[in-house]
Amino acid sequence: MDTPTPHHFHRRIYYADTDAGGVVHHATYLVIAEQARTEALIDAGTPHADLTAQHDALFMVRRVNLEYLRPARLDDTLTISTTFTGQTGATVAARQSFARADGAVCARMTAELVCVRASTGKPTRIPPRWRLAPEPAGAAAKDDVEE
Amino acid sequence: MDTPTPHHFHRRIYYADTDAGGVVHHATYLVIAEQARTEALIDAGTPHADLTAQHDALFMVRRVNLEYLRPARLDDTLTISTTFTGQTGATVAARQSFARADGAVCARMTAELVCVRASTGKPTRIPPRWRLAPEPAGAAAKDDVEE
Amino acid sequence: MDTPTPHHFHRRIYYADTDAGGVVHHATYLVIAEQARTEALIDAGTPHADLTAQHDALFMVRRVNLEYLRPARLDDTLTISTTFTGQTGATVAARQSFARADGAVCARMTAELVCVRASTGKPTRIPPRWRLAPEPAGAAAKDDVEE
Amino acid sequence: MDTPTPHHFHRRIYYADTDAGGVVHHATYLVIAEQARTEALIDAGTPHADLTAQHDALFMVRRVNLEYLRPARLDDTLTISTTFTGQTGATVAARQSFARADGAVCARMTAELVCVRASTGKPTRIPPRWRLAPEPAGAAAKDDVEE
Repeated sequence: MDTPTPHHFHRRIYYADTDAGGVVHHATYLVIAEQARTEALIDAGTPHADLTAQHDALFMVRRVNLEYLRPARLDDTLTISTTFTGQTGATVAARQSFARADGAVCARMTAELVCVRASTGKPTRIPPRWRLAPEPAGAAAKDDVEE
Repeated sequence: MDTPTPHHFHRRIYYADTDAGGVVHHATYLVIAEQARTEALIDAGTPHADLTAQHDALFMVRRVNLEYLRPARLDDTLTISTTFTGQTGATVAARQSFARADGAVCARMTAELVCVRASTGKPTRIPPRWRLAPEPAGAAAKDDVEE
Repeated sequence: MDTPTPHHFHRRIYYADTDAGGVVHHATYLVIAEQARTEALIDAGTPHADLTAQHDALFMVRRVNLEYLRPARLDDTLTISTTFTGQTGATVAARQSFARADGAVCARMTAELVCVRASTGKPTRIPPRWRLAPEPAGAAAKDDVEE
Repeated sequence: MDTPTPHHFHRRIYYADTDAGGVVHHATYLVIAEQARTEALIDAGTPHADLTAQHDALFMVRRVNLEYLRPARLDDTLTISTTFTGQTGATVAARQSFARADGAVCARMTAELVCVRASTGKPTRIPPRWRLAPEPAGAAAKDDVEE
């Protein structure tokens, strides 16, 4: 399978994103990462809104690992690169990084998302159209998800 | 009717509340004001959660006027004073202020809340138990709300 | 003087902007309004960043009046229209509205900004390049600001 | 060395903490975790404010790992348990969990904080008073930090 290519999202930093330390607050990165994943899905032709409207399903964040390397500041425009790196029947993994205009990476993270039924919150198989990332052969069969 | 007495809520300022200007971000005041109104309702024995559970209703903010007088900063503990100042059949007005430990008022606001049915979003009469503020005689009769 | 023309900023609504009522949280509008004013200044060739870098000054919000007319929801793309409506020596007034794709206005607000010296927080005259809005003849002379 | 005992912080969930999925937004946990660490430091007699005032230093988040186990909702009161688990010359590790009133754990995380000089952002040795957690013998000597 081909190596997935990253999606790029540009996001300016406003006052509300920063804190009294003069830098982007560490929780803001999760907010911006969500925006970047949403835009990546839309640009791939598989909007999250369709997942909910057509399948009564949504992706919830199950796990994040975030590493902060250097500060981003007011008026910086960050480029958030998002790659969906792997998938099982009900989960998808994403790798994201936040780079300044000079190319320096401010933070990087991984996220594991789980597809859940909106009405029950229970894990459910990701519909074929949202096959976002390479999936190992047979992986879906091993998942313990509602069909 | 008696003059309503204000409810006092104490809230420390954390990094996430502040911005790169070194002060509490102006949008944070609305977040803290909501916390203060929620606590005022709980302390009055009329939790907002009961309004939703028992009456399928909730208060939505319809209007706010906010005036910023002087900055609040990291590690300040603000005292938020909340007074419900008036009520009609479906709306309630609140007056709130944010004071530092030295008594200086950082901001003050008024909010108009409207009671809406959770399922429809339409204005609905405030249940008697949530009679939070003085109501002029005959005011309820003039309101155009679903019963 | 010509009537100022509004600036338009488009902003998608993400999960972090919404609340358990299923709608955009009322404090989120202030966050988005700040983004819209920042972009309006940049598009007008007078970035807020230059105001700080060249004049050690910044605009602080002194007053906001917000009226919520109808809910905005997840995945809506709002158009925020920003008009700088008036100016004195140290203050500028803005009028902003938030419209859905169908043209329905979700909220509208006015904001009064005051130009302050970054190092002292004291009001200071707005530099000529940031003359954003009509100013009544002689208004500047009446302002009580540090020069 | 003694096993460190966890600090407990209670925090009600308000509308602003939640999202349209009806649950606490995943970024909110970082905001609440910061509040809990701040309160833990204050209750231990070593406020973060003193670190800045007396040593021109502050703790920045360098790394977080967050795992979401089950949703928290509006009006829940979470108990955030914070334990400082280890320390080197310039870093401290914390383990935090978020439990509902019924004891069910909604999320758990680890955070690595680094002590930096406020004026330069460079790592600096944690002052003795902020010795929050067990430190392996000789660990400080190996750290590459400014003195």
